Amino acid sequence: MTATSSSPAPQVPHVGGRTPRIEDRRLLRGKGYYVDDVHLAGALAMRVVRATSAHATISAIDTEAARSLPGVRLVLTGEDTRHLGVIPIEEIGYHEGFPELDTFGHPVLAVDKVLYVGQPVAVVVAEDPYLAEDAAELVSVDYDDLPVLLNPVEAAGFSTPLHAGGNEPARFVKEYGDVEAAFAAAAHVVTGEFEIGRHTGIPMETRGCVVEPNPARDELWMWGPVHVHDSRRVMAKVLGMPQSSMRMRHTDVGGNFGVRGGAFPEYILVAHAARILGEPVKWIEDRVEHMVGISHAREQVHHISGAFDAEGKILALRDEIWHNHGAFMRQAEPLVSDITAGMIVGPYRIPALSAELHAVLTNKTPLAAYRGPGRFEGTFARERLFDLAAKEMGIDPVTIRLRNLLTAADLPWEPGLEIAFEPYSFNSGDVLDHVQKALAAADYDAWREEAAAARAEGRLVGNGVGLLMDKAGLGLYETGSVEVDEAGRVRILTGASSVGQGIETVLAQIVADQLSINPDVIDVLHGDTDLVPDGVGSWSSRSTVLAGGAARIAAIKTREKALELASEMLEADVADLELTEGRVQVVGSPGTSLSLGEIAQRFDNFTARLAGKEPGLGADAVYLDDHMNYPYGITLVQIEVDPTTGGHTIRRFFVSTEAGKVINHLTTEGQIIGAAAQGIGGALFEEFLYDEAGQPLSTSFMDYLIPTAEVIPRVDYFITEDAPTPNNPFGAKGLGEVGLIAVGAAVAGAIDDALGGEFRVQRVPVHPQALFTMARQAMAGQEGTAVDDVAESDTTALQIHLGTPATDD
Amino acid sequence: MTATSSSPAPQVPHVGGRTPRIEDRRLLRGKGYYVDDVHLAGALAMRVVRATSAHATISAIDTEAARSLPGVRLVLTGEDTRHLGVIPIEEIGYHEGFPELDTFGHPVLAVDKVLYVGQPVAVVVAEDPYLAEDAAELVSVDYDDLPVLLNPVEAAGFSTPLHAGGNEPARFVKEYGDVEAAFAAAAHVVTGEFEIGRHTGIPMETRGCVVEPNPARDELWMWGPVHVHDSRRVMAKVLGMPQSSMRMRHTDVGGNFGVRGGAFPEYILVAHAARILGEPVKWIEDRVEHMVGISHAREQVHHISGAFDAEGKILALRDEIWHNHGAFMRQAEPLVSDITAGMIVGPYRIPALSAELHAVLTNKTPLAAYRGPGRFEGTFARERLFDLAAKEMGIDPVTIRLRNLLTAADLPWEPGLEIAFEPYSFNSGDVLDHVQKALAAADYDAWREEAAAARAEGRLVGNGVGLLMDKAGLGLYETGSVEVDEAGRVRILTGASSVGQGIETVLAQIVADQLSINPDVIDVLHGDTDLVPDGVGSWSSRSTVLAGGAARIAAIKTREKALELASEMLEADVADLELTEGRVQVVGSPGTSLSLGEIAQRFDNFTARLAGKEPGLGADAVYLDDHMNYPYGITLVQIEVDPTTGGHTIRRFFVSTEAGKVINHLTTEGQIIGAAAQGIGGALFEEFLYDEAGQPLSTSFMDYLIPTAEVIPRVDYFITEDAPTPNNPFGAKGLGEVGLIAVGAAVAGAIDDALGGEFRVQRVPVHPQALFTMARQAMAGQEGTAVDDVAESDTTALQIHLGTPATDD
Repeated sequence: MTATSSSPAPQVPHVGGRTPRIEDRRLLRGKGYYVDDVHLAGALAMRVVRATSAHATISAIDTEAARSLPGVRLVLTGEDTRHLGVIPIEEIGYHEGFPELDTFGHPVLAVDKVLYVGQPVAVVVAEDPYLAEDAAELVSVDYDDLPVLLNPVEAAGFSTPLHAGGNEPARFVKEYGDVEAAFAAAAHVVTGEFEIGRHTGIPMETRGCVVEPNPARDELWMWGPVHVHDSRRVMAKVLGMPQSSMRMRHTDVGGNFGVRGGAFPEYILVAHAARILGEPVKWIEDRVEHMVGISHAREQVHHISGAFDAEGKILALRDEIWHNHGAFMRQAEPLVSDITAGMIVGPYRIPALSAELHAVLTNKTPLAAYRGPGRFEGTFARERLFDLAAKEMGIDPVTIRLRNLLTAADLPWEPGLEIAFEPYSFNSGDVLDHVQKALAAADYDAWREEAAAARAEGRLVGNGVGLLMDKAGLGLYETGSVEVDEAGRVRILTGASSVGQGIETVLAQIVADQLSINPDVIDVLHGDTDLVPDGVGSWSSRSTVLAGGAARIAAIKTREKALELASEMLEADVADLELTEGRVQVVGSPGTSLSLGEIAQRFDNFTARLAGKEPGLGADAVYLDDHMNYPYGITLVQIEVDPTTGGHTIRRFFVSTEAGKVINHLTTEGQIIGAAAQGIGGALFEEFLYDEAGQPLSTSFMDYLIPTAEVIPRVDYFITEDAPTPNNPFGAKGLGEVGLIAVGAAVAGAIDDALGGEFRVQRVPVHPQALFTMARQAMAGQEGTAVDDVAESDTTALQIHLGTPATDD
Repeated sequence: MTATSSSPAPQVPHVGGRTPRIEDRRLLRGKGYYVDDVHLAGALAMRVVRATSAHATISAIDTEAARSLPGVRLVLTGEDTRHLGVIPIEEIGYHEGFPELDTFGHPVLAVDKVLYVGQPVAVVVAEDPYLAEDAAELVSVDYDDLPVLLNPVEAAGFSTPLHAGGNEPARFVKEYGDVEAAFAAAAHVVTGEFEIGRHTGIPMETRGCVVEPNPARDELWMWGPVHVHDSRRVMAKVLGMPQSSMRMRHTDVGGNFGVRGGAFPEYILVAHAARILGEPVKWIEDRVEHMVGISHAREQVHHISGAFDAEGKILALRDEIWHNHGAFMRQAEPLVSDITAGMIVGPYRIPALSAELHAVLTNKTPLAAYRGPGRFEGTFARERLFDLAAKEMGIDPVTIRLRNLLTAADLPWEPGLEIAFEPYSFNSGDVLDHVQKALAAADYDAWREEAAAARAEGRLVGNGVGLLMDKAGLGLYETGSVEVDEAGRVRILTGASSVGQGIETVLAQIVADQLSINPDVIDVLHGDTDLVPDGVGSWSSRSTVLAGGAARIAAIKTREKALELASEMLEADVADLELTEGRVQVVGSPGTSLSLGEIAQRFDNFTARLAGKEPGLGADAVYLDDHMNYPYGITLVQIEVDPTTGGHTIRRFFVSTEAGKVINHLTTEGQIIGAAAQGIGGALFEEFLYDEAGQPLSTSFMDYLIPTAEVIPRVDYFITEDAPTPNNPFGAKGLGEVGLIAVGAAVAGAIDDALGGEFRVQRVPVHPQALFTMARQAMAGQEGTAVDDVAESDTTALQIHLGTPATDD
């Protein structure tokens, strides 16, 4: 039975359709294979002993009690891993600007001192996880506490640095145009201070890692890291092993969103322990560890000003940004800082810019990229500035934006700005046109009427708007191969990672169209360095563009090879052949045809080699992308605030984007809804809070508020495909992040509007306590709450959520 | 620390030296990783229920008791696997001559009837191997016995065939020259009937297989089969799976010798069971199973005649051969039959040939290729004929051979004979010259004097001689890749199999020389279809030639690439660079140099792709070989027989070969000594005996006599490298089997000589009972024993070995 013969005739094209997710063949049947599903006989369990002080020197570590517990096989402290050094900062290019970057890297285990609560201080490896946890509790660490530094603005100027190299590993200044002159000539100057709280992606699956040493040679088999090629490169460097000796194997990934993608110290420790012991070691973190160990994100302070002319046209933008990277620089940083400073311009025609960003270190968990990194933060600050300008200048918030959006007439918009080593070049589309269409599609005028009517009834209902520009399809390259098996099944091998985004489906669609087959006969393999020796990974909404580009080329080459081989087999000219419904046939003679499987069978390894031919039906490809793309859109939110509880209801949620080209409308919908949910989390719920001593207060889902299905509204979306990017053959711009980018901004505007129109929201998340406070102030006719006032209320915010009666303050 | 920097300066060239086996890094440290070392969590154990009747219909199978045993997860009988059919006969080309070949294939489980004791009838899969074995004993099979057929000559003419297609699946006739005329004109016609007993390679490691199903898709991970690509191809066909869904992983192999290399029914059953259950299944056979389940070998009857002129020059050879393949045709058959008929000519100038071979089936375990397949058997028959001719014509046994050996004057010797689809072409060397040198090196005249002196003292000491020609480096192709890691370690990926022959070492030597590095920094990987998607395997003394050829090309390409890349890095012309001691340096400026690791580092995947270059330092290669090679040589044995016990002592053992080129003198020594030991086993000890009902009598090492270290003499060997083959760049002819081919013949001659010169030995093995009988007859002045007489004594032979007093018969 061949797979092709049992499949229905393909519906083409699949690209642009709503092909069901092929990942769901396994995931919805409970056949997902996650790292915790990797059960190796005799695997030992690792447990991490984590710092309980936010900043301290380690005066002593006593591991004796742990070591002497029967079943404990290994205890490691910083002394044992000192030679491994720190996890190198891998982001290519930043070392030139910031040569000391590596000195801020994360040590594998703390050496001499700890810099945040949760930092790995020691590990215990034992015969089972319960024993390992018990033994870890017997490791006694003496800390001599040092002053704690939590606020990024303070940290930048702090005279006693946390690191020998200071507290500011990197500073970016992005400038073009004559900012001074613009501000001097401005009819209106608008200034604000805005804060984006510390939150992150919280994948359902916590981190984990399993390493099995090859008993015969110094070689490791490894399961768990998300971006296998990237993690392998870094880990091999730290462990001093050849990359080829670290063989990464596939597992499914229960959510990534950027924050789970690095080579974490724990992964290196698992590998190191397995190598020492010569036995398999497994580590699965619990949720409490996860909340202090996964990369955090966001946390920025913006001091932003805009120079406007009398009509509200922006003349220049000035921003000083403090970005709290936590205690160490993570592997891919300071990329998010760079992007924040560059993307602050958004979808606007801004003639002059001065953005200065301080990437600073504090005594918190280190930070990494999280869905929409730098864009969620900067968009909040910039859009709040536009709202403030609108208010101060008496212009409608939508109107002031429309006056400043980029249009086709501006193309190409290349103001002389560099973002992540690429010159910013907005070369396709018309933001104004798109936004006007989106506003019409949403019928935003009706929203306004509705809100006004509700307010007239005394209800706190308001609308907010956020304009966004994303960057996606980040350059570099991706690999892809297509192989047709003699049974007619097709394998796609990709260097991208399947992190829940549906890349398997998208690649299958692309290849199915090229080969005129049904996606049902396609398997997409990834995350296995034996099968795919080279690849990059999935971030920056790059997979469809990059991995799709590679798979497409491989499929085209495969199709060409199929026609050539069939030409020989059918004794017909290639020009007389067509590939249709999975079969190569002579045009006009449907009786004379060959399935792809039959062609592959004829050219199997054995037969082909003996005939002096290159065997197999398939091809490899690499897709290189020179430029990122800039999808844009608008987010509209209508919210109703309950002043008695600080609760809220998102009554309407609308997001739009110019996608260039949608490959799969079903997975696109999933991407947009998922992003919206995470945006709502960042706007209204999620925040890592710390007490003054740097003790984390948000280490469980009791304390770290994740938006539940109950609070996520229906997400309406509107997509145009008016402006395919010229940068790739699909025209696709990437849309994994657009749903989230302007949510903080739109929610803020909606709250202000709901509370009567005063400019109040200066920080996100506006979690229940803050909203309660602002609603009370609004009811009392008070002015907006300053950033500091809100911050002070942070630690009591949770009581409200948990139902404790609120008190006025 | 890079691996290259810590290695001592390489000693070059390694090819032709005595490089220690790199396999022994792990094997001698107990770090070998054999299939039984594959421990998977939750693996179930499979046990095979085997036929207890040699020929019977199955009237009923009751599995109820087994199924109801707690912990039993699956019981399969032939009804459950009927749809899988038989294991296909894979040997390319034979289907044209014998279109019904597949109908003689081995069923996965017996359907309706059994054809040999040990045939798999059912399998039980249970939670542990003990339980599986207990449950297997509860499977009750009712047999209706049928007449049993054991003798191949009888089987060929048997009127009631075992298979619908008869008992003779294939018949080969190899003819050239005018045989009739030669015999008519002959001065002497010599005729003999000779028998080669049934024995086989007995690897230390029994067969085993572990299969783990991918929980996410229909894909299997598999450990155990020796030739992974070959086994995968066959198994995928039987199981109806794409080959790419069967991912074979490396294990070490504790001996192969040809007989353990196939896709056995048990392997398919493990895979099938794992696929059904969705859980890992392991099967490790015990020794009793092994003795009936591993492929047997040899067992031929030759009716051979030679036409000689008055000087003893052979004019024509005629042979009719019956080859007992056992109950079914194995995957690679009837290759051994073909080779037997073709290689019967040996290293002689034989003007005319008629060889007719009947490949017949009986009620014994199926047969496969075993080290020196067809050559050990045919050489025994032909060399015995020369001994008989010498005796009948009164010519010295050495002299009559020297008169007939091929010399350089005969080149190319292409008499019009086809062997395994290749025209036999002896195109390099001079057998006569080599044999004369070998006789001088052995000082064979001194052996004769020594034996004569001993006999004069009444001791039974004699010398025997066997001339041999092998075929090696069998065509097809092999794959190989070389990869230099950025750490300076080098991986060789080969499609060949490491079966104990030292191929890792040989490939490392070849690559080390090309890259001017130390073999210590090289790892050789094989047996993993993810890493090496295409390969052939190791048999027919082909690995050095084929896999070595591929590795050499890959290494040369790698060296060229290193020079090119270094040229860029050092800004020097390629012509001014040299690769020496692992570094590329500017000729005359040893200060300016780069290690291979440094070059690889500069062109790692990431950096190279971004620079628009093909990444990595390494290359792939395929080596195709058009022709096999024909190594030749002589084997000399001096034996002393103890007439009171039938015991013997091999006093001298000498084997020679013209190797063309020796790659590694150390592994060559190992190959020759190992082959000699197996030859001695086949000549004097090892035989699978059956009673009249087809019940095997040799199912343990109590009954199947393996030569122990005690009886293996010092092996003297003599190698010439006078005639490198033009067929490959090394000139190497392959020497894995030469040590064994003529041992049966030489031992037979030596026994005859020891027993007074009568022509007695007509079959091997001359196991203790036969030798005892012959010695007694010789002492009594009786004539030689006929084949039938000896065969009748088989079943009592063991009593002697076990110390039971022998009785005259």
